[in-house]
Amino acid sequence: MNILDKLGFTPVRWSDNGLVILDQRKLPLSEEYLALNSVDDVARAIGLLAVRGAPLIGIVAAYGLCLLPDPDNDVPFKDACEKLISSRPTAVNLPWAVERMILVRNRHKENPDLKNLMLSEARAIHNEDAMMCEKIGTIGNEIVPHNCQILTHCNAGALATGGIGTALGVIYTAFFYGKSVQVWVDETRPVLQGSRLTAWELSRAKVPYKVIVDNMAGRLMADGKVDLVITGADRIANNLDFANKTGTYALAVLASYHKIPFYCAAPSSTFDPECPGGASIPIEYRNEDEIRILNGSQSTPFGADVYNPGFDITPHSLICGIITEKGIVRPWDHRGL
Amino acid sequence: MNILDKLGFTPVRWSDNGLVILDQRKLPLSEEYLALNSVDDVARAIGLLAVRGAPLIGIVAAYGLCLLPDPDNDVPFKDACEKLISSRPTAVNLPWAVERMILVRNRHKENPDLKNLMLSEARAIHNEDAMMCEKIGTIGNEIVPHNCQILTHCNAGALATGGIGTALGVIYTAFFYGKSVQVWVDETRPVLQGSRLTAWELSRAKVPYKVIVDNMAGRLMADGKVDLVITGADRIANNLDFANKTGTYALAVLASYHKIPFYCAAPSSTFDPECPGGASIPIEYRNEDEIRILNGSQSTPFGADVYNPGFDITPHSLICGIITEKGIVRPWDHRGL
Repeated sequence: MNILDKLGFTPVRWSDNGLVILDQRKLPLSEEYLALNSVDDVARAIGLLAVRGAPLIGIVAAYGLCLLPDPDNDVPFKDACEKLISSRPTAVNLPWAVERMILVRNRHKENPDLKNLMLSEARAIHNEDAMMCEKIGTIGNEIVPHNCQILTHCNAGALATGGIGTALGVIYTAFFYGKSVQVWVDETRPVLQGSRLTAWELSRAKVPYKVIVDNMAGRLMADGKVDLVITGADRIANNLDFANKTGTYALAVLASYHKIPFYCAAPSSTFDPECPGGASIPIEYRNEDEIRILNGSQSTPFGADVYNPGFDITPHSLICGIITEKGIVRPWDHRGL
Repeated sequence: MNILDKLGFTPVRWSDNGLVILDQRKLPLSEEYLALNSVDDVARAIGLLAVRGAPLIGIVAAYGLCLLPDPDNDVPFKDACEKLISSRPTAVNLPWAVERMILVRNRHKENPDLKNLMLSEARAIHNEDAMMCEKIGTIGNEIVPHNCQILTHCNAGALATGGIGTALGVIYTAFFYGKSVQVWVDETRPVLQGSRLTAWELSRAKVPYKVIVDNMAGRLMADGKVDLVITGADRIANNLDFANKTGTYALAVLASYHKIPFYCAAPSSTFDPECPGGASIPIEYRNEDEIRILNGSQSTPFGADVYNPGFDITPHSLICGIITEKGIVRPWDHRGL
């Protein structure tokens, strides 16, 4: 079964005219596509969240390097790599994908066919991610009970990856293979990736869902309305601590308190072998206006002090496991991927 | 010291022309006052959250009955009482205040001075609430450490009461008596009483604060940035379970997990002697568009399913105590107020 076809959209596409992305800032009300014609365009689209999701920004950055007019020219190539890597700091898939492109570029720098070889590598990163999502879905499906209410946070779906998604990939697989699934969608303030993006994906796929504000998740758990929590991840340390969208940590504590299994789903490209534990993961502090301004209008007093970390760290002690394309990694039995 | 004067606003005022309220829907961007000229006006203002806060809606309902042209006329009086009580179901202060007005009205029904006697009772309810807030502030100040970071949810301040507030009353008292206090303000989705109202009050009083989105509170606690959590309450059962704004339960679990004291602050009018435990408290389910529409613009797909309980129940086992005007009531040592 091809689940990706059932969703009927693609968040990134390479065309003869360059790179085309679905502008995720415009969802759910409008499905608009943006052509990105330069590395600057790509870095800006990533920084402004027109394209987001840890695996997807890796894919987009890889395609971005294929937009360079002269990739064999050292200085602009190095500048481009740095610009893309620094466009967002937390997700490790971004430097991981750029590193893969650097290896291919350096190996074939003198080759007249360099541009095509680079494009092949970007496509490979894209296709491999789609395959990893599919495997994550199949493996994760094993831990989804029948007649199950699943809570998710942010968007770890087809809009965040090259395939059917990670956390949502598990949910889609369970659903399309016939399990009865109801999804609680955390709206995910401040940027509302849940109510805008996850709800949009799920409604297209006709998976039953309800949107809640983030602070309701705990009470739903106490009321017996949540059987499972699954989120994505932006960077996973060697000890399985992981960074994900702000609010994930509180969900993991609440799930643990209510004895509800909490899983994270992520491809191996999200693991950072350089990173011993959560404290070493860089956290992005985002523009304070994400909290101050809602849909273009001020929601706090003018000049209000706010605090806006884009991510938080969840310690491995709070999770049942990380669902990867290679199997489910358990904190108590982990010797590396 | 008169702390109320330092705040410089009053959310409700009886004037020769009737009842005037500060329209809380317009805050923080605009300070607009609404004249309410009938019981229908008052019930509508309560239902639409132009005026809100458990103690304050009791006060406003009491004044509302003083707007009746012929309060000695049984049928319209009874209709008015029912309309006011049913304008919001969860806060018990509303039926409590209306019951007080009914007693006075019935006792003096034949008295030609009935209207003035009723107005005196409404003023008494208002003034008593202001005094209760002051006492709650003084009593609560004892549990506020020096150099303290306090987290609060929703608005339990001067905008929610006839005085300096309950949870914020404690914070104001600590601050104006010289303690160094920094407040974390949960924005409190869906209606944003935290970012709109609590932040507005605190900025007027020059109390240092930072607004966060609700899902960040857990991580702040883990990072050692919260020393104390204080919220208000809408109804307190005999066993000290209490209803408060949706999201309060999760905060109480998170505080308990991180071994941070969690207090609720409320006047005795918030205690419901008829109510044995949290399961007996009616929960108001509010309009789903509160979640779907942010500042006038849709944030979910059209027709998205949502779930919107306005309140949740926190069990007494998760709290250190309830700060009342009669002292701090402890769950492990409670024999009634």
